[in-house]
Amino acid sequence: MKNAQPIPAPVVARLSLYLRQVEHLARQGRTKISSRELAQSLQFTDAKVRKDLAWFGHFGLPGVGYRIDPLIEALRHVLGTDRTWDVVVVGAGDLGRALLRYRGFRRKGFRVLGAFDVAPNKVGKKIGDVPVWNFSQLPEVIRTHKVKLAVVAVPAEAAQAVVDKLCKCGIKGILNFAATSLQTAPHVAVGQVDLAASLEQLSFQMVRK
Amino acid sequence: MKNAQPIPAPVVARLSLYLRQVEHLARQGRTKISSRELAQSLQFTDAKVRKDLAWFGHFGLPGVGYRIDPLIEALRHVLGTDRTWDVVVVGAGDLGRALLRYRGFRRKGFRVLGAFDVAPNKVGKKIGDVPVWNFSQLPEVIRTHKVKLAVVAVPAEAAQAVVDKLCKCGIKGILNFAATSLQTAPHVAVGQVDLAASLEQLSFQMVRK
Repeated sequence: MKNAQPIPAPVVARLSLYLRQVEHLARQGRTKISSRELAQSLQFTDAKVRKDLAWFGHFGLPGVGYRIDPLIEALRHVLGTDRTWDVVVVGAGDLGRALLRYRGFRRKGFRVLGAFDVAPNKVGKKIGDVPVWNFSQLPEVIRTHKVKLAVVAVPAEAAQAVVDKLCKCGIKGILNFAATSLQTAPHVAVGQVDLAASLEQLSFQMVRK
Repeated sequence: MKNAQPIPAPVVARLSLYLRQVEHLARQGRTKISSRELAQSLQFTDAKVRKDLAWFGHFGLPGVGYRIDPLIEALRHVLGTDRTWDVVVVGAGDLGRALLRYRGFRRKGFRVLGAFDVAPNKVGKKIGDVPVWNFSQLPEVIRTHKVKLAVVAVPAEAAQAVVDKLCKCGIKGILNFAATSLQTAPHVAVGQVDLAASLEQLSFQMVRK
């Protein structure tokens, strides 16, 4: 399953698309798919699909294509979503509250334990079914529950300080929704979801249409 | 301001980063910035910053750098966020409701008029201060208010049908949160925010740390 070389980032990004597509087909009762069909459904070339999937194993059956169930299992394993990750959300403002209610986390195996905030009117309450703790309890909660992953949904100005604290507490991955670039230790993985930039990229295109 | 050639997508993506950075400096009372400082703050090279900004005008003052206020104005103008866009949200499920409460839209000039759903228990109610209309009213609302932009937050299975309807009603831009690739007419701009893929990319990195 493992390859000596690191898998390039664009390949990893496409693995998410392959997984989504074959999960969709599995729900329709399909059991096999050819590289050609998988390629066409995503507007890629056959060769790209075969090359991408060859990075982490050989699933193709000559003349048949890929068996869908083992392919799903392998994609989930490579992407690390075949396990459960405990997550905390830092920031229980608009966006944090929105994310706490978003069920997509759970569907990908991300279990939200709770949120942290500094506002006295938020701390001690619940959002949906998760508690809001005082930010000062962050180290204790992370250590007790061995949390490896944090979602950062604080204002941009506060994000770097929060991230520094998270790194100190031993967090291994951060999904950052704050509209700012972050500096982290090299052993911490960072993903960025930039809604403001997405809106700007879209309005840029619309002005030109 | 306008260049004959289209601005490449990676340049447009960096414009969002420049804008964020100079807005941040403006809030601190700064009035000028050198290309070197702007470059260093984003871990780019000087040359890249100067080349990117030269795509849409010449703001640099030799020996001084860029004047921040005109640079902000120009970046907002190029990105199309110097105006107000009326937006509708299709889908008032978990994610739709979360997005309706997200104030970041308004900060970038996106004014949410209302949401659409098909569920009788949602239609006719309000989320925050915006109404939820029946999906059947979509063409009427879009035409009456001349809405150009829609946010799609429906399940993946329903997304293409929703988008086909939006395109027929004359929408010009779609921000898609549904975890699926969409086919649209060439005159419709599409932005994709893929939370599931972001989570997968992060867990992929974490497994390897």
